[in-house]
Amino acid sequence: MSKVTVWNENRHEQKNPIVREIYPKGIHGAIAGFLEEAGFDVSTATLDEAEHGLTDEVLRNTDVLVWWGHLAHGEVNDDIVEKIHQRVLDGMGLIVLHSGHFSKIFKRLMGTSCDLKWREADDKERIWVVDPSHPIVEGLGEYIELEKEEMYGEHFDIPVPDQLVFVSWFEGGEVFRSGCTYRRGNGRIFYFRPGHETYPTYHHQDVQKVITNAVKWAQPVNRKRPVYGNAQSIEPISIK
Amino acid sequence: MSKVTVWNENRHEQKNPIVREIYPKGIHGAIAGFLEEAGFDVSTATLDEAEHGLTDEVLRNTDVLVWWGHLAHGEVNDDIVEKIHQRVLDGMGLIVLHSGHFSKIFKRLMGTSCDLKWREADDKERIWVVDPSHPIVEGLGEYIELEKEEMYGEHFDIPVPDQLVFVSWFEGGEVFRSGCTYRRGNGRIFYFRPGHETYPTYHHQDVQKVITNAVKWAQPVNRKRPVYGNAQSIEPISIK
Amino acid sequence: MSKVTVWNENRHEQKNPIVREIYPKGIHGAIAGFLEEAGFDVSTATLDEAEHGLTDEVLRNTDVLVWWGHLAHGEVNDDIVEKIHQRVLDGMGLIVLHSGHFSKIFKRLMGTSCDLKWREADDKERIWVVDPSHPIVEGLGEYIELEKEEMYGEHFDIPVPDQLVFVSWFEGGEVFRSGCTYRRGNGRIFYFRPGHETYPTYHHQDVQKVITNAVKWAQPVNRKRPVYGNAQSIEPISIK
Amino acid sequence: MSKVTVWNENRHEQKNPIVREIYPKGIHGAIAGFLEEAGFDVSTATLDEAEHGLTDEVLRNTDVLVWWGHLAHGEVNDDIVEKIHQRVLDGMGLIVLHSGHFSKIFKRLMGTSCDLKWREADDKERIWVVDPSHPIVEGLGEYIELEKEEMYGEHFDIPVPDQLVFVSWFEGGEVFRSGCTYRRGNGRIFYFRPGHETYPTYHHQDVQKVITNAVKWAQPVNRKRPVYGNAQSIEPISIK
Repeated sequence: MSKVTVWNENRHEQKNPIVREIYPKGIHGAIAGFLEEAGFDVSTATLDEAEHGLTDEVLRNTDVLVWWGHLAHGEVNDDIVEKIHQRVLDGMGLIVLHSGHFSKIFKRLMGTSCDLKWREADDKERIWVVDPSHPIVEGLGEYIELEKEEMYGEHFDIPVPDQLVFVSWFEGGEVFRSGCTYRRGNGRIFYFRPGHETYPTYHHQDVQKVITNAVKWAQPVNRKRPVYGNAQSIEPISIK
Repeated sequence: MSKVTVWNENRHEQKNPIVREIYPKGIHGAIAGFLEEAGFDVSTATLDEAEHGLTDEVLRNTDVLVWWGHLAHGEVNDDIVEKIHQRVLDGMGLIVLHSGHFSKIFKRLMGTSCDLKWREADDKERIWVVDPSHPIVEGLGEYIELEKEEMYGEHFDIPVPDQLVFVSWFEGGEVFRSGCTYRRGNGRIFYFRPGHETYPTYHHQDVQKVITNAVKWAQPVNRKRPVYGNAQSIEPISIK
Repeated sequence: MSKVTVWNENRHEQKNPIVREIYPKGIHGAIAGFLEEAGFDVSTATLDEAEHGLTDEVLRNTDVLVWWGHLAHGEVNDDIVEKIHQRVLDGMGLIVLHSGHFSKIFKRLMGTSCDLKWREADDKERIWVVDPSHPIVEGLGEYIELEKEEMYGEHFDIPVPDQLVFVSWFEGGEVFRSGCTYRRGNGRIFYFRPGHETYPTYHHQDVQKVITNAVKWAQPVNRKRPVYGNAQSIEPISIK
Repeated sequence: MSKVTVWNENRHEQKNPIVREIYPKGIHGAIAGFLEEAGFDVSTATLDEAEHGLTDEVLRNTDVLVWWGHLAHGEVNDDIVEKIHQRVLDGMGLIVLHSGHFSKIFKRLMGTSCDLKWREADDKERIWVVDPSHPIVEGLGEYIELEKEEMYGEHFDIPVPDQLVFVSWFEGGEVFRSGCTYRRGNGRIFYFRPGHETYPTYHHQDVQKVITNAVKWAQPVNRKRPVYGNAQSIEPISIK
């Protein structure tokens, strides 16, 4: 059974009673909950644990890592970011949610600023499926509608996605590439936009479906890295 | 259980004793054999059957269609090609093998000539994995080596693949984009190069792994087509 | 100097006084006008001319073909569509505008239905730049705003664009991949969404910039097709 | 006129008489030479100059930066790498050559290890054009043949290229994605494989054509970055 670690900064929950009310077990608890119901072997980890809860053993045993962070990206230890990076290259899946666009690990993997426009104004959001053949949209209708969300708008400064799965419409006049896949090394990455802490977005059934599908999709398929470096010793086919 | 139909022109087998010796049950029989062992519900269909064995009922009940053709692309009925095309848009997976690059259905889906260079000269072929994160390469090493194959060389006149999974090296000096995925509508398509009829390529374990993985990967995820056409009647959000 | 042919169905202009008022020289005349000012050697051609104005000589001498059609896609002669298709593979650029998404030539090149949602309800449209590095956006701001346009909405049934340049926002709640590039053979293709006949869209300065940039971008770079077919006679490097 | 800076580590030239003989003016001198002939305004910069020759003023005035490094990637100052990175996001073109695959700036932009297989054994290399529509292949035949080069083989640990322009064949049995484009922010990047220091590769006419075409292609088109951050103050369209 596939092992999933849900990582959450878990700071808004401590400071803001509105967030605590929406997510009494934390954002990580809410996400872990529906992933467990979907049959995954789920653990959680948070910023203020030792090594942010991401020890070598935890990382080694994680097939897919889910990431939510916002206030405290800068407090994530660089050495741990490097370990996560290496694990992604080795094949671990990574699901980056909402404000995780600015996390060290996402910026490290993307090579761009990952900047965007934003506005907290209770915009209505419609997340349109633009790739109806993708496993991540299984079981969805043509769009997901969220009554109120934080707006994220283009330009989103990311590399061209390998696959563009969702595009969001916002009431105030913006669009956003909301569901983007990438691969880096042996690992697969999915960025999914919604999930501002003051809205009950992770209780929305379709949002849960997307994250569940994404975790399935991001399973490692190949745990062995290719051989790199000097190929002198390998017998070439036809060099005289 | 997923339903797979393996379609084969089945003409070389009738004319050429070498081919018959390598594939006593036909190329379709060989492919159906290892797909059955992998747990799929497999049927076969061939050119000279009524409606080429691809009746409406067969097509409706096919999750993934595997296609091998060479000598007689022109004899495939245009109406049946249209039906296959529609089924792909509706979500049916399609695996096109080797000389199927020139089949009507592949050219219809690609929109290009699908032409290439070729040479029958017992070239050694090495099929290199260029995407180690792709489900289609699960269980493979870094390359598949075929002692002798027909050469296919660039330029291969196809649209840019959505995902490039394999690149072949040929002894005589050519390269070829050997494993290419596309999506069209709700359906997923994989083109896989090797399989000239006079070589025992489809008995090669790694070639069988690739085709088996590809059939898994190409499963329909979304059987419902999006709604197209006049959206006048749908209540728009904010038009006055 | 690069030769551009602007093709227009030119039927709305005959039937609808509103269209005639907006485009007294026809949509083709309006487009030809600003392309001439930009320094191209521009001709026009329309459906009701002999061979739709696209004789072999015209096509042979066209570097980039611009296409607007809507009511009468079915009246475009199949042989001429085949010739245009061949010319694109040979390197001719093709700019497909608005309702040209349903033209025979675009569907032939795409291999999909090219269907979409639409609504004529004076929606406001914002065409957002999602690729600020692309030559087609040179000189634009972050978006183009059109006060009123026909809505085109996802899902747009096209192959994954090689490059996604623009995404539209519509007042009524939809998004659309509005600027998409493809290559087929030696030729480059750009689809650009706006331009419903009853709005003065092609008089909008930014829309003109996009089409002008697209014509520059789609110039043929390589007039020689690769060699296809039997490479037996070419001396292979190392086959014994 | 477009300003190009050719950066070279310039260490092999000091240590190895063979390299000095092939490139008496340094690799940078050779590249600068043919770019000047092509009409660019070219400067050079090398590792051992102050600030590696890449002062703020030099970077600000560079439209396209060409990069060759090998022995001393680690000696390139991190602050300067950050400045180059920012300039690329701002729109500066970047052409990374050969062993530059392991440079700090390339790895920073890619987010992967950029590792590969290599062998110094005088392999013959054939660099095949796989995208005949790309401006970078203008004026080339179907492939470039280099009698002797260092082998670089797959797997090349890079993100999926935005555009794959060349694939190399090597005598010893390997293939390599030799010409890859990316965009990051407003900037365009081209990686081009050949150019081991002990071979006269940069004197090869077709290699010169590719680099010249790439410099043209990588010109900044849009010097203004999109606006990022809080969009609260911008009047949204329809939020009540």
